[in-house]
Amino acid sequence: MYQVNSPNNRSWVEVADDSDFSIQNLPFGVFEYEKYPARLCSAIGNYIIDLHEVKKMGYFNSIKELPNNIFLDDNLNSFIGLGKNTTNQVRTELSKLLNVTNYPNSVEKSHLFLVPQSSVTMLLPIKIGDYTDFYSSREHATNVGTMFRDPANALLPNWLHIPVGYHGRASSVVVSETPIIRPNGQMKIASSENPVFGPTKQLDFELEMAFIVGKNTTLGQAIPIEKTEEFIFGVTLLNDWSARDIQAWEYVPLGPFLGKNFATTISPWIVTLEALEPFKVENPTQEPTPLPYLQTSNIGSYDIQLTVDIQTVSMEKSQTICRSNFKTMYWTMQQQLAHHTVNGCNVRVGDLCGSGTISGKTPDSYGSMLELAWKGTKPILLNDGSQRSFLQDGDTITLNGYAEKNGIRVGFGTANGKIISK
Amino acid sequence: MYQVNSPNNRSWVEVADDSDFSIQNLPFGVFEYEKYPARLCSAIGNYIIDLHEVKKMGYFNSIKELPNNIFLDDNLNSFIGLGKNTTNQVRTELSKLLNVTNYPNSVEKSHLFLVPQSSVTMLLPIKIGDYTDFYSSREHATNVGTMFRDPANALLPNWLHIPVGYHGRASSVVVSETPIIRPNGQMKIASSENPVFGPTKQLDFELEMAFIVGKNTTLGQAIPIEKTEEFIFGVTLLNDWSARDIQAWEYVPLGPFLGKNFATTISPWIVTLEALEPFKVENPTQEPTPLPYLQTSNIGSYDIQLTVDIQTVSMEKSQTICRSNFKTMYWTMQQQLAHHTVNGCNVRVGDLCGSGTISGKTPDSYGSMLELAWKGTKPILLNDGSQRSFLQDGDTITLNGYAEKNGIRVGFGTANGKIISK
Repeated sequence: MYQVNSPNNRSWVEVADDSDFSIQNLPFGVFEYEKYPARLCSAIGNYIIDLHEVKKMGYFNSIKELPNNIFLDDNLNSFIGLGKNTTNQVRTELSKLLNVTNYPNSVEKSHLFLVPQSSVTMLLPIKIGDYTDFYSSREHATNVGTMFRDPANALLPNWLHIPVGYHGRASSVVVSETPIIRPNGQMKIASSENPVFGPTKQLDFELEMAFIVGKNTTLGQAIPIEKTEEFIFGVTLLNDWSARDIQAWEYVPLGPFLGKNFATTISPWIVTLEALEPFKVENPTQEPTPLPYLQTSNIGSYDIQLTVDIQTVSMEKSQTICRSNFKTMYWTMQQQLAHHTVNGCNVRVGDLCGSGTISGKTPDSYGSMLELAWKGTKPILLNDGSQRSFLQDGDTITLNGYAEKNGIRVGFGTANGKIISK
Repeated sequence: MYQVNSPNNRSWVEVADDSDFSIQNLPFGVFEYEKYPARLCSAIGNYIIDLHEVKKMGYFNSIKELPNNIFLDDNLNSFIGLGKNTTNQVRTELSKLLNVTNYPNSVEKSHLFLVPQSSVTMLLPIKIGDYTDFYSSREHATNVGTMFRDPANALLPNWLHIPVGYHGRASSVVVSETPIIRPNGQMKIASSENPVFGPTKQLDFELEMAFIVGKNTTLGQAIPIEKTEEFIFGVTLLNDWSARDIQAWEYVPLGPFLGKNFATTISPWIVTLEALEPFKVENPTQEPTPLPYLQTSNIGSYDIQLTVDIQTVSMEKSQTICRSNFKTMYWTMQQQLAHHTVNGCNVRVGDLCGSGTISGKTPDSYGSMLELAWKGTKPILLNDGSQRSFLQDGDTITLNGYAEKNGIRVGFGTANGKIISK
């Protein structure tokens, strides 16, 4: 059987060594081109692949149950809803089409389905029913607990037993390149007895990844942990923008609300779980052993290198301020989804589940400004000579991520946002 | 101009004195009848009003911008999205049609558009984008704070400054009559050092009302408090089912998650804000004065009588265990919506915003089992001789609510759910 993931798989399309979009990746997204309505696409090298054009040329004819206009849509939900059997066949057929062995047969027609990425606009790829955000990095939870509570008991008692999570706002999830408006809100400052109102002074990013649910469940149906991968379509980058001063004042006892729900940025590409398969690495050791519904011998951790870059208005190029890795997470996506549904909570195609901030052990791997500048006590020195404890207007934050092994690179594109004031 | 709300408005349809569905009400819902596809409806007396049939008969011809098949849908969103100008005209024209002065002209054709409520199935009336739940009863927050924290400082420092709220789960909002499956989950019990897993032993209801957003905003747009009513389509009953043991273990620091998201029940009828106008009552005194963005001289409280009934498997008829009133809420819906959007968080037609548990000052007005049985220390004695601290399998909980003034009653129907085990 044809293996999309094989390192021997090579394309006749030029793919730079550091491109996120190798022939092994073939992620899914939604694009707009000139004045045409939105369509679904994949990507290779510097091009998007117009899936409707590929279909019109007959390259997907062998795939049963692929509705005629399935790629003429402004979100991936209906496509994802076809099921992995079908969506994986689309990746396989795409891979065959792009494989060197198909040259020059397919290259002659390539102008029909390859469009330079630089000439299209990528849209929010999914229609999100519910957005859940977890809190699954032990280092992040420990850092926050140390700063705001008690260094000796930084982790709360439930943290090692539960992939702690909460519901976020679906309406304000935006795609990369969307400007982020500095939110107003109530906050409590030391110099005032009463709360004050105004623009947040502690605007932050959070480096996260997120998975997209690929299959509906019904109310009352728990997904056993061994089956969770059937329900995960793919993975994207996520920036959980946070207003720390608003959050600190509002969050007891019901959790974050206005400190988070003003905006969440995701990257435009959903990388399938199948494309990430070669980059699986051993799960973290969990002590104490979690309850049985959270136990599995299946591997659920992924070696994905992540960076956060900042570019201020006076910088000519961006500067990396965080290097982290998805494999450092304590709770896996499998455990998150098993937990999420163990009470019968139903999930739907297109639901978005954030990982929580991905902080590693070393200070340069912390996934938020809050941690990097340690609550403002250690401001970061930037290349333009300025300092940052939190984000300023004009700052652009860019998340990048990729997995790499045996010379094969599978990347996520970027999740990017510039802070503006209204 | 024709006044739907006028006490002189009388219908040729028989409406019992204690009916929720007077000619002054005319709420909106979605029904299914025999094998026909779902349609939009209103209600009067014991009948639903099939709006598509009314339209076919030409009674809405005077309303501009009413698309042809607007009432042939399985949710109200598109209809609500037409705007209050249009949706209020529909209520006005319906009221004229049903008014005694139109007898016998319209009564002859009534079999075409009036269907007994007992013969239809009511569906979830809205497609919910985001569901937010507030915590706006001072008495409820005080009771919970007293039980779980410190009676001397029951209210947390932010409570009198912020209409505290959090995001809930949209996927698991169900319509009245949907059975509620007792959720499994992790909980911490006194006799065990480690958490245990199993069915919740502390299943509870929460008596709430909720408003439905009637108009989209864009990201970054705050709704000034004076304009909030333009963005509220109507109000429904809501039961925020809660598993107290799961919630207690999971909720720090990010708030309730699996303890709540297994199910939320709403009543099938959305009563418009316009139908509730005559029942407005003075806002509560708020001390300290909230920040300016939460201040208004507009009245935003409503005198709505609420009851919670329980029926166990051995009871022949249900028993009322709580009598409360929506007017007791500290924070108004206007303040909730102004707060929700003050940071630029966008809202969309169909978003659902729960009030929080509606507890009054007296113990018989507490809106949850947790409070009624005071954390299990004062079990409720039921008519069948049994006791309850929390809900048992087979128990049915029914919320009812209505406003009444000058002989006019505007009610909400019921929000009903029976506890089952899977």
